[in-house]
Amino acid sequence: FRKYKVRYFFYIGGNDSMDTANRIYEASINAKYDLGVIGIPKTVDNDLLFTDHCPGFGSAAKYIATSVLEAGYHARGLYEFERVTILETVGRNTGWLAGASALARRSSVDPPHLIYFPEVPFSLDQFKEDVKRVCNEIGGAFIVVGEGIRDERGELFSLKNGSSPIDSFGHVFLGRAGDFLRRFIIQEMGLVAQNIKLDICQQSAAHLISGVDIKEAQMVGEDAVKYAVNGKSGVMITLIREEGSSYRCKTSTVELSKVANRERKVPRPWINEEGNFVRKEFIQYAYPLIQEEVKVPTREGLPLYVKLHNYRVKEK
Amino acid sequence: FRKYKVRYFFYIGGNDSMDTANRIYEASINAKYDLGVIGIPKTVDNDLLFTDHCPGFGSAAKYIATSVLEAGYHARGLYEFERVTILETVGRNTGWLAGASALARRSSVDPPHLIYFPEVPFSLDQFKEDVKRVCNEIGGAFIVVGEGIRDERGELFSLKNGSSPIDSFGHVFLGRAGDFLRRFIIQEMGLVAQNIKLDICQQSAAHLISGVDIKEAQMVGEDAVKYAVNGKSGVMITLIREEGSSYRCKTSTVELSKVANRERKVPRPWINEEGNFVRKEFIQYAYPLIQEEVKVPTREGLPLYVKLHNYRVKEK
Repeated sequence: FRKYKVRYFFYIGGNDSMDTANRIYEASINAKYDLGVIGIPKTVDNDLLFTDHCPGFGSAAKYIATSVLEAGYHARGLYEFERVTILETVGRNTGWLAGASALARRSSVDPPHLIYFPEVPFSLDQFKEDVKRVCNEIGGAFIVVGEGIRDERGELFSLKNGSSPIDSFGHVFLGRAGDFLRRFIIQEMGLVAQNIKLDICQQSAAHLISGVDIKEAQMVGEDAVKYAVNGKSGVMITLIREEGSSYRCKTSTVELSKVANRERKVPRPWINEEGNFVRKEFIQYAYPLIQEEVKVPTREGLPLYVKLHNYRVKEK
Repeated sequence: FRKYKVRYFFYIGGNDSMDTANRIYEASINAKYDLGVIGIPKTVDNDLLFTDHCPGFGSAAKYIATSVLEAGYHARGLYEFERVTILETVGRNTGWLAGASALARRSSVDPPHLIYFPEVPFSLDQFKEDVKRVCNEIGGAFIVVGEGIRDERGELFSLKNGSSPIDSFGHVFLGRAGDFLRRFIIQEMGLVAQNIKLDICQQSAAHLISGVDIKEAQMVGEDAVKYAVNGKSGVMITLIREEGSSYRCKTSTVELSKVANRERKVPRPWINEEGNFVRKEFIQYAYPLIQEEVKVPTREGLPLYVKLHNYRVKEK
């Protein structure tokens, strides 16, 4: 930083990124180097503390809800022979995106019929009962499950698949819970089941971006610069939902040390007692975030996204 | 049909549906009942004979190409620790949708880097070499694979996964090839790999419909009625691509008996010699079919699709 006379450092990301930003802030204090360090929240996982929500979440939620709505129409036509569809959402130890799929449900027969959260211990016995009941009621079941669901002993279902999802650095790779449940349904319930694994499409499907999300992302970025120029450092920008009947957010800040490496879970009262669907509080929270459509520029039938040229800064 | 005085029967679908339509046509001949039986092609698999392509394919191709383009941007940011992404397409024994992902590739570093077709015997040794080479060249690999790939002995990779994908009716359920290859890369190559399984989203993602596709779908439906009213029966509507520099299709018909239960594969010369990417002939074929965007009506941030009321016809 000193070498290139860098005076402001903006770091965009989730928990790990806020931890990195915080370390850089602490290092700048220790080195007595005047650096403006600002964390900018951006994660589809939506799991940063002290902010109402994270830019990126609304668009991913819109993509998930749209996919569940559409795949649900298709699945319904297959109930006679292909009973169960499982869609797995990202979000690590939190079920924000899984819960957002509930926005697709416009009537009692609409998908999703069951949603499972990493926040609630997952019981295979209860799951079996739930699926049986829904199949009896409406002929089939469309299930959304957060990748980070754990059993009563805290073991990840992602790890129950035989092949090791751990890389050479020791990171656990999630994203196998849906596949585990698909097998369980086939083997233990004798039903035909398929699973959808959108994986990184959830982070990247910008063709379905939410208008509210993109406006807030811009506001958060602009305000980050304003806070920095006004001398703030060691903070993350937050979104604060204003009181009132119509949805509106403003920005504020929180110390990076308070956010780093911590997770905001879906509040238990926002999930129903059985732990298999959201309550209306969740819908009220997520609904405004997926609103408004954005026309993405296209070229030759496909979206056209900006590619940044990386210019090398000269030493000063 | 006699009881309700039904004189025309339109059946929309793929190979199995054309077989059903053909049986009904033959039954009407045998019963000396004057019935207009028209098959209307509609399958994202794009595997019906005698038609240039099938309505539905262009929109699914647009969805696949868009998803690969977007997920490819995301994957590129992860090459340092998460090397390989595998996306599996539907299409049974044909690789039309897998090939269509090539439309996303705008430069040599863009995804997809490798495409594998059910039309070409799949060799794990060759695959390993391909992945190694691409990872060396550009840091990671984005691979698209048709669900129906088979080894040199004709065995489906979808069946090499341990759990039985066969239902109580004896149908083979595909859709596990990508997962098999993910495990292979982790276990045999020591690389971190993730797989995307869009599954039925490929058949249902109407928010990314192709304008060309929807116009042709309408034309095929309208012309089906015209052919029927003019006394045609026992035929499927086909799309015929006209000669000339600009893309244009007209409709024609072919006997249902010629289409029923047969598959149109991707021509081998449209796939490169190594069997791991398309040639320009494929691009020229698929390119016009994904063009033009359609604004889907929305309600409360999500697409709004028509729900048909099913009225019961009165006996006459």
